[in-house]
Order: sequence, then structure tokens, then C-alpha cells
Amino acid sequence: MSLRFIALEGPDGAGKSVQAALLVNALRARGIPLTFTREPGGTRLGEQVREVVLNPGPTPRSGEADALLFHAARAQNVRENIRPALARGELVVTDRFLWSSRAYQGYGSGVPLHLLDALEDLSCGETRPGLAILVDVPIEVGLERRNRGEQAQMTRFEDLSRHDADFHQRVRDGYLEMAAADPDRWLVIDGDRPVDAIAPDVLEAALRFLADSEPNAADLRMSEQTALR
Amino acid sequence: MSLRFIALEGPDGAGKSVQAALLVNALRARGIPLTFTREPGGTRLGEQVREVVLNPGPTPRSGEADALLFHAARAQNVRENIRPALARGELVVTDRFLWSSRAYQGYGSGVPLHLLDALEDLSCGETRPGLAILVDVPIEVGLERRNRGEQAQMTRFEDLSRHDADFHQRVRDGYLEMAAADPDRWLVIDGDRPVDAIAPDVLEAALRFLADSEPNAADLRMSEQTALR
Repeated sequence: MSLRFIALEGPDGAGKSVQAALLVNALRARGIPLTFTREPGGTRLGEQVREVVLNPGPTPRSGEADALLFHAARAQNVRENIRPALARGELVVTDRFLWSSRAYQGYGSGVPLHLLDALEDLSCGETRPGLAILVDVPIEVGLERRNRGEQAQMTRFEDLSRHDADFHQRVRDGYLEMAAADPDRWLVIDGDRPVDAIAPDVLEAALRFLADSEPNAADLRMSEQTALR
Repeated sequence: MSLRFIALEGPDGAGKSVQAALLVNALRARGIPLTFTREPGGTRLGEQVREVVLNPGPTPRSGEADALLFHAARAQNVRENIRPALARGELVVTDRFLWSSRAYQGYGSGVPLHLLDALEDLSCGETRPGLAILVDVPIEVGLERRNRGEQAQMTRFEDLSRHDADFHQRVRDGYLEMAAADPDRWLVIDGDRPVDAIAPDVLEAALRFLADSEPNAADLRMSEQTALR
């Protein structure tokens, strides 16, 4: 049985964080007990890592250092928040999870994917979302959208170097590849639509997942089938 | 050929940092070009990680999070300082390296050693010290000594819980086990002596290692032997 644990994933500017917040509100309005986390964050270490990321030095961090750093925050978040919430029977919703490291540091920066497997074993173990929702947008759309937001770093798509554009394209392609390889876990949602058009799709996917992951859902369906005979 | 790269390792209060500083001064006095680093540190990320460690929250960090965090700082230090220094032909001396993670998070906190292997591949790759000097002391001596220093956290051995004493014992035993398993790389030095008695042993070990790792040392020894015939 998969864990009652949902991740929202996607490239920059896909609108994932807005959708995560709308989803959390809609589920809470239905009285579903849940814990919401965003990465990095949710623990003291996570907030410290967020500070590190927001205050980079003149020398860029390597993809390897970033993969290790984000997994450190994730390891603590899993132990301090996610596992206890699951143990209390709550749903957990997270804005980004291990696939962000695979997409950005793996597909994007070229850190070998098999080495990221080991980091995931260490930080997450078996604690992995049963549903991963990819909010997908073309990179031009994502970056233009990010510019309309209140991001500190404004990057217009037209101003991206070839190198940066290739990076963002690899991130998006990586997400699509991961989703295609594991269709039981992933749902790809077209993020190139208005926020209000996307939100119902995300909510519907979450509610369907919750219905399927009820402890007794399989038994119930079986008795329904039996009753129909 | 092993890299001209020396690590000083050891449990808390062994006197490793003092010995590292004395070694660096003695080697520089001999005109040997070298780069000195301490962990975590030496890069912006490393100093940020040091701040994290010095400012813990109320919830202890897990061994997994710490292993990932220290390897993140290490990955950046390897790329930003250590590899460039080795490429310039310098000797690199480091106060702690990957074996500290194995000793503290692996042997001490129980993080599986095979998962630490993967972190080392990611952070260090082939960039590993050719000489590792273990400054070894019984845990009672190390902790008493740490108390005489200007450490923020004063822990008297007598005040240690059984749990903490066991932890420090596992760290020390782990170091000794690693050193015994790889005698070509490791030298164990008795740290339960006055600083001035230890320093010459450390320097001698470093000079012998440097002589052996000279690019042409093997050839030179061969010609000496030839000349003696």
C-alpha cells in the first residue's frame, strides 16, 4: 500500500507552489487532517539550508554539493515532520521532494542518477510519496511567469544564455522522463493554463488517490464486487 | 601514485587541530607550498555549514542529515580548494576529512557504512588523502582535554550519560578499525602525550610520505640502489 503522501513537482514557474497551497486549503476545508511541508524547510536545518541557498557566494556551488545539501534538509524533514505525521494517520503534502534533486542536480547538472539513488535511500528510505503531481510547462512559459512573480532573481527567457536554456530544458525533460517511467505514481498536469483551471485537476487527482489509498479501499471494492454477483 | 594530500583525524579532544596547525607551520618553514583546510569550512558553503552546526535547534539533527550536510561542505571544498591546489602541485593538509563522517555518523550514529560509500563517491570521487594520521586518545582523556580548551560546550567525562559514553567509544573504535583495515594509508599516533612530544612524530610521518610520493621518488630510489651495486 502506498503512503498517504503527495508531492507537487515541476520546473521553475510552473505554478506548483500556488497549486500546493490551493490543494492544501481545499483538502483542509473537507476536514482531511494533513501536514504540509515545502522544501527546503519545515525544520531548523531546512530553514538554514534555505538561507544558504538565498545567500550564495561568488563561486557557484557544485551540483554534487547541492544534491547533498538538499538531501540533508530532506532527511531531517522526513524524520522530524513527515514520518510522525504519517504515523498519526495524517495526509502529507509536500511542495517539492526527491524528484526535484533528480531533475535539477541529476538531469540538469549532470550528477550521476545512480549516486542520487543512494542519497534517497539515506534521506528518505521507504518514505516516498504515493502520488507525485508534475505541473508541467514549457520553459519559456515557466520563466516568463516567474518574472511576473516577486522573485528576487528576474530572468527573462530571452536573456538566458544557451547554457542556461539547455539546463532548464534538461530539467523539464527529466521530469517528463521520470513521470513516464513510473505512471502508477505520477500524474502530469498541463500547467500552461490559468491557475483556476489547473486547481480542480490537482484536487481531483488528490481525492482519487486518497480514495484508493484508504486502508480498506481494496477490501471494500472487493466486497462491492461480491455484492454485485 | 597517491595524492599529495594529508588528513589529520581523531576523536574529540585528541589534539588533532593543534597538531594540524603545527604541521602546517613546520612544512611551510621548509618552503613546501601547501594549502590548509579544515572541515567544515574553507568555502562559503562550508562556513555556512559550520554556522548550522554551531546553532542547532531544539530537535537534534539525525545522523543521516549530518552525514549529508558534512559531505555537502566536503564536495564544495574538494572542487573549490583541494583539486585546484593539487593541480597547482601543492600539498594539501586537512583537519578532518571523509573518515570523520564514517567515524561519527557511521560508527557513532549507526548510519550504514555502505551508504556512506556513495556519499564519498559523490563528494570526493578519487580525491582522497594518501596519508591519514589518526591522533588517538582514550575517550576519557579526549573529553577532559576538550574541557581545558575554550570549547563552548563543556562536557566532563563523568557527566556523560551511558549513551554518550558509548557513542564516543564507538567513534574511537571506528577510527582504530579503519586504520587497521588500510595500513598503507593510515598512521596511528599516540595522542595521550604532551603536544610537543606528538608534533615531531606527525612531522616525520608527513615528510616520509612526501618523500615517498615525490613524482620520481621510486625512480630515484631505484637509481640509488643501482649506484650501490
